[in-house]
Amino acid sequence: MSSENTGLPVRSEILQLQPCVHGGLVRETAQKYNLNESDLLDFSASLNPLGTPFQYYNCSLEELVSNNTEKLTRYPDNRYLEFRDAAAGFIGNLDRENIIPGNGSCELIRLVAECVVEKGDQVIIPQPTFDEYELQCRIFGARPVYINYSEIPQISDELLNSSKILFVCNPNNPTGELLSRSTLKDLADRCAETSTLLFVDEAFIELSDPEQSVAELVKDNNFVFVMRSLTKSFAIPGIRVGFGVASQKLANVLDNARLSWNMGFVSDVVGTELLKMKGGVYSSYFRDSRKMIDRERKYLIDRISRIHGFTLLDSSVNYILVDVSESVMDSKELTQRLAARGILVRDCSSFCSLGDEFIRVAVRNSEDTNKLAKNIGRAMTDRSRDSAKEKLEHRINSSKGRSLVGSNTACPYYPCHYEGQDCTFCFCPFYPCEDERTGGKCIERSSGGKVWSCMKCYIVHDPEVAQEILDVLRENGEMDNKIKKAWKKVIKPRLSEK
Amino acid sequence: MSSENTGLPVRSEILQLQPCVHGGLVRETAQKYNLNESDLLDFSASLNPLGTPFQYYNCSLEELVSNNTEKLTRYPDNRYLEFRDAAAGFIGNLDRENIIPGNGSCELIRLVAECVVEKGDQVIIPQPTFDEYELQCRIFGARPVYINYSEIPQISDELLNSSKILFVCNPNNPTGELLSRSTLKDLADRCAETSTLLFVDEAFIELSDPEQSVAELVKDNNFVFVMRSLTKSFAIPGIRVGFGVASQKLANVLDNARLSWNMGFVSDVVGTELLKMKGGVYSSYFRDSRKMIDRERKYLIDRISRIHGFTLLDSSVNYILVDVSESVMDSKELTQRLAARGILVRDCSSFCSLGDEFIRVAVRNSEDTNKLAKNIGRAMTDRSRDSAKEKLEHRINSSKGRSLVGSNTACPYYPCHYEGQDCTFCFCPFYPCEDERTGGKCIERSSGGKVWSCMKCYIVHDPEVAQEILDVLRENGEMDNKIKKAWKKVIKPRLSEK
Repeated sequence: MSSENTGLPVRSEILQLQPCVHGGLVRETAQKYNLNESDLLDFSASLNPLGTPFQYYNCSLEELVSNNTEKLTRYPDNRYLEFRDAAAGFIGNLDRENIIPGNGSCELIRLVAECVVEKGDQVIIPQPTFDEYELQCRIFGARPVYINYSEIPQISDELLNSSKILFVCNPNNPTGELLSRSTLKDLADRCAETSTLLFVDEAFIELSDPEQSVAELVKDNNFVFVMRSLTKSFAIPGIRVGFGVASQKLANVLDNARLSWNMGFVSDVVGTELLKMKGGVYSSYFRDSRKMIDRERKYLIDRISRIHGFTLLDSSVNYILVDVSESVMDSKELTQRLAARGILVRDCSSFCSLGDEFIRVAVRNSEDTNKLAKNIGRAMTDRSRDSAKEKLEHRINSSKGRSLVGSNTACPYYPCHYEGQDCTFCFCPFYPCEDERTGGKCIERSSGGKVWSCMKCYIVHDPEVAQEILDVLRENGEMDNKIKKAWKKVIKPRLSEK
Repeated sequence: MSSENTGLPVRSEILQLQPCVHGGLVRETAQKYNLNESDLLDFSASLNPLGTPFQYYNCSLEELVSNNTEKLTRYPDNRYLEFRDAAAGFIGNLDRENIIPGNGSCELIRLVAECVVEKGDQVIIPQPTFDEYELQCRIFGARPVYINYSEIPQISDELLNSSKILFVCNPNNPTGELLSRSTLKDLADRCAETSTLLFVDEAFIELSDPEQSVAELVKDNNFVFVMRSLTKSFAIPGIRVGFGVASQKLANVLDNARLSWNMGFVSDVVGTELLKMKGGVYSSYFRDSRKMIDRERKYLIDRISRIHGFTLLDSSVNYILVDVSESVMDSKELTQRLAARGILVRDCSSFCSLGDEFIRVAVRNSEDTNKLAKNIGRAMTDRSRDSAKEKLEHRINSSKGRSLVGSNTACPYYPCHYEGQDCTFCFCPFYPCEDERTGGKCIERSSGGKVWSCMKCYIVHDPEVAQEILDVLRENGEMDNKIKKAWKKVIKPRLSEK
């Protein structure tokens, strides 16, 4: 598309843009399902489950703002000296001249893309990974080439040689894989030789293993850019603040190109305060955070992997990729059904190469994890019920004028109740009736919680009963009312016989 | 420069960047001159002199933050629906679909540049004007062409035809000129015909004449982009918030290309609250603001134009361009001398085409304006004293071994005291002695305040006295000490004679 075709004065790369999908859509979901925002439980944004660090430092956002209100009516000092000093100290062994302040990490990805990419340049995106790298590079006309994330250590010289940037998310989003410092050190050396920028996104490193950070490599390598974010580690996504780390020479050029006053005073003041915390990535706040994440991740894996069809992948950090390909729902339907119940998980179908087989779930405390497990169970029940109802309606409509289907011996589950059973109501219209006189009963689910089992109920599979039910359901009227009528007229008299 | 030469993986356009110079460097100046930030008086950033509007609406920044702290730990709703509704309502007669939220106006300039400019494209920058347009376009390889701001209405079809963007700052920064709505309407129609984007920067329109805004033109013109800022109008530069206005079609594309969560929750909440104010640009806050600006601008013009060599240009808004070409100092020196005294004005030498002949001064209240006038006077006195001392030292050094210069009849001011005077101490080493026995006295300055006049002092121009002074000043030692000694030994005895 060119501007001639669209009537807009905009470059073709921009017209083709599809913004990235992200997690954390709390308000949007609340509006869509008519829920209270505060009732939502968000497993889709992967924030530090320990919460903000303010209570560790006896301070609060309100205090920081009210102690600095005079900064409202002044332009921020565009050099951001205190913030950059604090960031350099947080990383350790670096100077303020190595730091580029950012209004959140997305701005830093765009800054690098706009400073480095020329139209037609090749950039390497190991998949699956955070979608913003590709989007931001596409804006400037880059051609992305994909490799598997696991192939990063073995990437060929040829590919590096022909590429402007190699993006490495470490730990990787959404898989939680962590590459070692030594692997990345080797890669950084090779990138310096091939003049390829190695962009390492360490947005989650504090919540994984800060020993694997390669931020210090920038001291003698102009081809490494390390991105850090305060959003996830400090659980403060409402305030946009992050920073880039690069050699003094590269940082100076990127800092020149960033927007004037890109951080407002609140980001500046809060970011500086948090980055100055004693111990930095080894502070008690982060040590406690990592301990909690290890413990709660184990609990999450144990709890959710008991659910039939849910396979949880290994992770080094505060989120887990869950393979739901063996589950009754694909990732989209599962995400929607959980959202309707006030539980947000991240549908990974927007990630390149993941199809609709994965969700990403944040590590939260055990109580929240229990709610997640319970709601996955309920979403699966909702699904079965809706699906049964749908198939029932289909059956009734398609059987108009015809009688029962009889025994469906072609069904892989036949005979699920008894040899010679009628299969018209394969999906029982009364499930879960919760009336033990039918022969059904409540049983323990393997993943925990109770579920209604009708294994021992033979009623609706009796041809005579089935015919009577079908006659009622074929009448005109609302399906729900007809089901109630059939229960009263056909089933109830037979139960009282017992 | 290419990356091969610099060893950096960065595009050549980025390596050549020089960030724009801006006003409002309060902290930087305080550090440089060892002053308290709170003691500085800032005429270099042109903020609404009425101050923030919070007291008009019985709310405060602290309250807005503390009522919304739950937003700290959530990602902002990236659709920014409430903010965009509020902005559309503030402009009037537009919908949220016309609004692109921005983290301050610089981000919006960059967004347009990156979405529109292809390498080699021509953009039109009417001079003098806000420097960011050119800088942001240069990043993407644009070729700027300059016209005079006054030539905008007569711009040729040929020039429009060959250009991607025409930037119009209205009212213009730094001149304060305001183009009429009808002039811009004609221009917008022509731009639609030539497929040139008309970028109208209305950052100051609320403080000038909102009737001249062209924001509503976007409704049926895909080639108009109007930029609005909350920074100056609401005097809140510490919070980064602005918005773009465009046709729904163009706004949708630009909104797709902006960064996710570009505004943190504080900008979002505060911006929404302020834009929702009853009456919008015609609220009592803005009516009072414009009244105050009109009144105080008149006072500023009256007060400062009395200073010799200061010519103030007409302005429609809360800043004035001051021609100091006839003054004793150029804009750089004046700005530095005022900064050393805690008064910030904007040296305009960074603006294309203005040389070192202009400063820009914000309209503030009368009390502040009086301080500005007083300090300009003092800076001029400082300057005269420093210059006199410099020339004195030069004279003494260059006259080593020689005697007096005698009468300098070639001087255009000769004889400034009496026919036959000695001119060795053209710049009196004792000025201002403030001893009326010399014949000097304190007089009223034309621009207000007092100044020491030595018109009636004949002492240092007597050849015998001059020779005695010269003998003392030629001794070894500190100049200040030698001047004291000369006063005591040569002048004082002659005064007691009187």
